[in-house]
Amino acid sequence: MLSKSVIELLSMNHQSPFQVFANLRYAVFQRSTLLLNIHALPSHNQRLSNESFSLTSGAGCDIFQHGASEKRSARIDTVDLTELSITYEVRVETNPDAREIYDTRQLPITEMELSTLDYLFPSRYCESDLMGLLAAKLFGHIAHPLAQARAISDWVFENIDYVVGSTGGATSAHDTLTQRAGVCRDFAHLAIALCRALSIPARYFSGYACNMQPPDFHACFEACVGNRWFIFDPTRLSSPNGLIRIASGRDAADTSFATIFGAMEMELLEVSCTAEHFEPLSQRTLEGKAILLEP
Amino acid sequence: MLSKSVIELLSMNHQSPFQVFANLRYAVFQRSTLLLNIHALPSHNQRLSNESFSLTSGAGCDIFQHGASEKRSARIDTVDLTELSITYEVRVETNPDAREIYDTRQLPITEMELSTLDYLFPSRYCESDLMGLLAAKLFGHIAHPLAQARAISDWVFENIDYVVGSTGGATSAHDTLTQRAGVCRDFAHLAIALCRALSIPARYFSGYACNMQPPDFHACFEACVGNRWFIFDPTRLSSPNGLIRIASGRDAADTSFATIFGAMEMELLEVSCTAEHFEPLSQRTLEGKAILLEP
Amino acid sequence: MLSKSVIELLSMNHQSPFQVFANLRYAVFQRSTLLLNIHALPSHNQRLSNESFSLTSGAGCDIFQHGASEKRSARIDTVDLTELSITYEVRVETNPDAREIYDTRQLPITEMELSTLDYLFPSRYCESDLMGLLAAKLFGHIAHPLAQARAISDWVFENIDYVVGSTGGATSAHDTLTQRAGVCRDFAHLAIALCRALSIPARYFSGYACNMQPPDFHACFEACVGNRWFIFDPTRLSSPNGLIRIASGRDAADTSFATIFGAMEMELLEVSCTAEHFEPLSQRTLEGKAILLEP
Amino acid sequence: MLSKSVIELLSMNHQSPFQVFANLRYAVFQRSTLLLNIHALPSHNQRLSNESFSLTSGAGCDIFQHGASEKRSARIDTVDLTELSITYEVRVETNPDAREIYDTRQLPITEMELSTLDYLFPSRYCESDLMGLLAAKLFGHIAHPLAQARAISDWVFENIDYVVGSTGGATSAHDTLTQRAGVCRDFAHLAIALCRALSIPARYFSGYACNMQPPDFHACFEACVGNRWFIFDPTRLSSPNGLIRIASGRDAADTSFATIFGAMEMELLEVSCTAEHFEPLSQRTLEGKAILLEP
Repeated sequence: MLSKSVIELLSMNHQSPFQVFANLRYAVFQRSTLLLNIHALPSHNQRLSNESFSLTSGAGCDIFQHGASEKRSARIDTVDLTELSITYEVRVETNPDAREIYDTRQLPITEMELSTLDYLFPSRYCESDLMGLLAAKLFGHIAHPLAQARAISDWVFENIDYVVGSTGGATSAHDTLTQRAGVCRDFAHLAIALCRALSIPARYFSGYACNMQPPDFHACFEACVGNRWFIFDPTRLSSPNGLIRIASGRDAADTSFATIFGAMEMELLEVSCTAEHFEPLSQRTLEGKAILLEP
Repeated sequence: MLSKSVIELLSMNHQSPFQVFANLRYAVFQRSTLLLNIHALPSHNQRLSNESFSLTSGAGCDIFQHGASEKRSARIDTVDLTELSITYEVRVETNPDAREIYDTRQLPITEMELSTLDYLFPSRYCESDLMGLLAAKLFGHIAHPLAQARAISDWVFENIDYVVGSTGGATSAHDTLTQRAGVCRDFAHLAIALCRALSIPARYFSGYACNMQPPDFHACFEACVGNRWFIFDPTRLSSPNGLIRIASGRDAADTSFATIFGAMEMELLEVSCTAEHFEPLSQRTLEGKAILLEP
Repeated sequence: MLSKSVIELLSMNHQSPFQVFANLRYAVFQRSTLLLNIHALPSHNQRLSNESFSLTSGAGCDIFQHGASEKRSARIDTVDLTELSITYEVRVETNPDAREIYDTRQLPITEMELSTLDYLFPSRYCESDLMGLLAAKLFGHIAHPLAQARAISDWVFENIDYVVGSTGGATSAHDTLTQRAGVCRDFAHLAIALCRALSIPARYFSGYACNMQPPDFHACFEACVGNRWFIFDPTRLSSPNGLIRIASGRDAADTSFATIFGAMEMELLEVSCTAEHFEPLSQRTLEGKAILLEP
Repeated sequence: MLSKSVIELLSMNHQSPFQVFANLRYAVFQRSTLLLNIHALPSHNQRLSNESFSLTSGAGCDIFQHGASEKRSARIDTVDLTELSITYEVRVETNPDAREIYDTRQLPITEMELSTLDYLFPSRYCESDLMGLLAAKLFGHIAHPLAQARAISDWVFENIDYVVGSTGGATSAHDTLTQRAGVCRDFAHLAIALCRALSIPARYFSGYACNMQPPDFHACFEACVGNRWFIFDPTRLSSPNGLIRIASGRDAADTSFATIFGAMEMELLEVSCTAEHFEPLSQRTLEGKAILLEP
């Protein structure tokens, strides 16, 4: 049975731990504050070890995970530095799981967990409020919300070109729908907007992706069905079993890996995420299934 | 041969003349100027007779057809009127013609008539510059530009809902693409933008439509292939052999039936366009063909 | 001393309690879910009594205040009703306070409370990411962030016309900036976007407003300075001492008073908020000061 | 009399002729068509001599000035070239003139020349239809339309930052109004939109500018008052007496210096415009006056 084999693949897999490494360097032109979202998020299915985070001495820093927030942020004060370097390393073990799409429970909005309701509404880069008719026309005939989310991910992959440099920080799902090009962030925003337009809670996933070429921070999306969050990568540049979560949020505005308050300029960005043995899941293996990063 | 039969239908048809009637009334709050584009445009294939245009006495008016412009505009000065009524009547004979789509010559841009080149560029409501990839993805596989124009008209019909009140004066093709609803003007704008994105000159057609329900001014679009302008109605609310041209232009900004400079408010708009005998062309009859309003 | 007098006015005032009343009626065309944000939010400075919330019998309903969320939402299941009526009543005592603008502590981002950081980022209707230069040009010369927030509120009041019906559910701050007309929601969105563009956390306030004409739900904004939230009404239709909070959020997407999932249509909306004695604060009295709804 | 002195300056000045030079080189990846608008436009006040236009042998080319169009376009067929070079040189004498702003006749719309009416309407990059209220608020108190146009030019200069690379080909006046940064094209678009919103016909001027740093094609705008077109440069990077017209149009969509149909990539762009003696007009000299390039 194909289905079983995926679950087996995932559960058996004793996946090798991932080794994550990030190195950032900034020129600092005046005392500034930097908000960084680059720490892997510890969770039931994402166990961290050997974590180290170091920055140029002289900088102030607090690391926090606020309230309901699904991220660990570092707030860095450059004090009197003129150059700021940051190095982050961590070893991560994850434990993704697979579900048969049509076996997943569908819940009416009245039974959705309260924490998921916020993800039904439009956000800066996901104008789901404009896309009700479109989403209904494209995906309304599909019977199951998880199948809809999967179809949305596939549709975005098939209809949007991955073109580095084609978009910018102000590009939203509405733009991408017309322009049909973008990068991982734009793919995720469009898929999220289409899910929400169908009343499926959907959120932005920011993280590291094993062996991605070229190595960089990555963005995907999660859709909530049956009060569980399923992960999809509409770019198909990563495999869901190679993803490490940094943050969940409504869109890139919530989870941006670096936000500068002041005057700084990035001079270097190195990211890597590797594993001793890593077996990506093929599209074929994923047929009819959806992957959970958390239980 | 089906093709012949359409041409016969059109050439034989000795179509009854159309009787056009428009009645507008405005409350005038201060001396204002009204630019009206409601006169049928005389041309080789659109013969006018019994034309009358009358307005409340006291108003000033000049009617002009400027330069290359494809419209007859009335410029009305309300002087000291507090109410302005306008009545327009005309009898129109048209002589549409049909062509086999794949028999139409394709011309490279270097052989296009100079007058058509302006219609390759984006305009206020037709952001063709944003839609190159989209148009290529949807229609790039179609070999012939006239077949592309036809496919665009069909795609707009199939993918956009006609919903009165869903859009406003600022709605553009980019908006309609996301929102998937609009009225005749929005359908035309989107089709024009998609044609231009494929380097097919395309223009806005504003006119009267025989027996349209509810009666109103109507908008369609024309695509230029082989230096001839072919008409399409992506709303399918009119039949191309029942159309009477008021104006051609880049989009509704060029051809708006009424523009107020000052302070006036429309109180009444009545339009009618009828014929003693009128036989609309079915979609089936139009299969594989495209209609020309002018030679 | 003028300043003292305001504080006295507010503290002495033993403001009469407000009596809030809302009545909504919907036609229901299929089983639907309605999310309502119309409950006043209990808090240190907003004491509720005699609260009643009733709806047509047969409907299912749960009322919840989720996690960090600053609202009490009602989630209503219409089950088999064809008409749904909702009545809400509550008696509210508030205790607003005043501060001298220039006495308020300014805090760098590194000392802001974590819960306020989310309100630095752009949201669906507040594209602060586009307005950095504009905000710096208009308000950058003002030395104190609370004075900036006050100046933003005044600027929005002076530069935007309050025009009922001029905007819709998709209108954002970017639109309002160009179109210069809107309603309370649009005024709040624009002010919020401008604050965030200056790195001042700002949030949407949705609530009831005493004696507002015509009576309706109202929207204002709060800016966070010195880790305290100060309230401003850029429409000047309400007085800050007459405001009762329903919800705080990033923008109207978070706090919309009613969201329909399914097929329902509003048939009636009645809102009232009155007090036995109510003395609005004049713009003059507010000179140099800002008002806190919570300590 | 200051006014006289400007007119004298302009009429006396026996301005040295301008020497214009442009050099473009493209890599050609497939047979393509290039539409170029780089030829200076001959006119009453813009006399051309020693004109030469040469391109890589093997390319096809026709140069045309179509109908009412205010530009000379070159339509180039790359045939089987893999590289295309274009060189354009011309010697130009211009004869700008000055008028006292408040001496210029104001004409109601009913007396405007027909050819100017098209420039009252919105276009791709100039959404004047969205800016009626804004323009009235900012400039409605100014009594004379030419003074309004001058004030608009000044306002754009003072409120928008000239930032190379801040905008792209899709940026419109609505965007620039919010983002407050742009290049010459954006400055012109915003000024045009604001003029049209006040019912002043306004058009895009594309041309060469004497001694501009860095040398490049330049864009300004013209406003029509009293049926005469007055030139303004809201960037203040050029002086009106140093401008040489390539094209007039509704906006950059009409007058883009190069449009590619096919697959080509620009590899080189050199522009220069110099004169033996050139005396730019100072802002002070221009006080109270406006400059005409044509009678």
